[in-house]
Amino acid sequence: MEIITSIREMQRWSEARRRERKIIAFVPTMGFLHEGHLSLVREGKRRGDVVVVSIFVNPIQFNQPSDFATYPRNVEQDRRMLEAIATDVLFLPEAAEMYPPGFQTTVEVETVSRPLCGAFRPGHFRGVATVVTKLFNIVKPHLALFGEKDFQQCVVIRRMVQDLNFDLEIITMPTVREPDGLAMSSRNARLSPAERQSSLCLSRALRKAQEVVRQGERRSAVILQVVRDEIAKEPQVRIEYATLANPETLEDVAEVAGPTLLALAAWVGEVRLIDNCILQ
Amino acid sequence: MEIITSIREMQRWSEARRRERKIIAFVPTMGFLHEGHLSLVREGKRRGDVVVVSIFVNPIQFNQPSDFATYPRNVEQDRRMLEAIATDVLFLPEAAEMYPPGFQTTVEVETVSRPLCGAFRPGHFRGVATVVTKLFNIVKPHLALFGEKDFQQCVVIRRMVQDLNFDLEIITMPTVREPDGLAMSSRNARLSPAERQSSLCLSRALRKAQEVVRQGERRSAVILQVVRDEIAKEPQVRIEYATLANPETLEDVAEVAGPTLLALAAWVGEVRLIDNCILQ
Repeated sequence: MEIITSIREMQRWSEARRRERKIIAFVPTMGFLHEGHLSLVREGKRRGDVVVVSIFVNPIQFNQPSDFATYPRNVEQDRRMLEAIATDVLFLPEAAEMYPPGFQTTVEVETVSRPLCGAFRPGHFRGVATVVTKLFNIVKPHLALFGEKDFQQCVVIRRMVQDLNFDLEIITMPTVREPDGLAMSSRNARLSPAERQSSLCLSRALRKAQEVVRQGERRSAVILQVVRDEIAKEPQVRIEYATLANPETLEDVAEVAGPTLLALAAWVGEVRLIDNCILQ
Repeated sequence: MEIITSIREMQRWSEARRRERKIIAFVPTMGFLHEGHLSLVREGKRRGDVVVVSIFVNPIQFNQPSDFATYPRNVEQDRRMLEAIATDVLFLPEAAEMYPPGFQTTVEVETVSRPLCGAFRPGHFRGVATVVTKLFNIVKPHLALFGEKDFQQCVVIRRMVQDLNFDLEIITMPTVREPDGLAMSSRNARLSPAERQSSLCLSRALRKAQEVVRQGERRSAVILQVVRDEIAKEPQVRIEYATLANPETLEDVAEVAGPTLLALAAWVGEVRLIDNCILQ
């Protein structure tokens, strides 16, 4: 596996591969990799000729400095994991190269960035859209892979790619879960053993909601009450939002008619976790 | 000359040229072409293997609907002019293809978009940065050419290219003027004969400023008074701004020390014109 830290060198590498008509698959990450990321890399290898993974903890998408400071990092472990699944290139830029003095350009996807996480993390999706635009221009992929655990991010990126005419395909892959149901997330590493146990109420709440919908319930208010009741059983867990929304526009829905996104965010101690599923 | 109206087809064309290792030069325009545009196309042909010109009157960069409505258009004449100088492709998209329903993504270059024209045309440079990002992703050029008459636009685009890591070179070319000094602009076509005559005070004011600087004057206030006095001689002309600024940051300067941008905007009847020069 080649490790590239320079933007210019990454562009040269990708340009050379494109001339050889190689299909470049790209998995942008913030590192501290888990099986969720690896499933994206494997799918990238399956669909592309070469796969590039970036690791960059993007400062401008963190709305809280403490979250940025405590975001888990372990590049050496990440490197070994990527090497083991035959990643072609690890792109590992420094923040000073990505955001040199005078940097002042932002990309914003307006409507779909607003609800859900956007309402609680001002500037977050602007930071995501901006860094992903940069990474697309640097890595020049034919396809880019994102995990559906970050469902709103997938919607934002798809919309951005369409609106700005990036000539590439976005592929999203299902959330990978721990055997007990917790959605894999780099932030899970920050949970204490007790918090780790409490956090199971999130995936349990999603399953309960799926159950009541299977039994015929369609009213959002009723379904969301089931979700809130389940999470309320864990006093350590503080719900930030639980919403039923149209999975394309992310607008709230009053009823489940057709595929509906159930998205939730909650604080488990000092750690903010998100999870989601599609109902019906 | 090939005329391409579809985004997808333009991307395919450019991708094929890049695989053949052809250097693609790109001149984005809003049409109603004049010698200023043609100088960009000729320089593009000189530096590239193929040259693509786009004509698209971009609705989102007009802050006044009436300016958009009255912006001069003549695609048939433009086509003939481009054909005559052996342009390879004219990219001519429809507004409905560039901005389909649900479009919601914007690109903003924050600091350098704020002063000068940015202060009087809210949203203008956001519209420019957004459409140029789209066009770069559609035409995939190795180099793109812009005219220095739109000096602030050149600064905004250069900054955007650097910040978003577009892998292409920006080339700017000097303002082309009519024999009597008026900077060429598509909007000149909207001037009445009397207004056309009055508008000469703009280039005359620039020349006067250059003269007093040559004679040793360094104080911005004094130089700008010379500019204002010259323009005041034409009662039909209403100055919008006249500013001395750092040509890289576009920040106001109190003194001319090193190369300094003198930029001005003025209304001649219903027509807004801009002009600029570099002092010293």
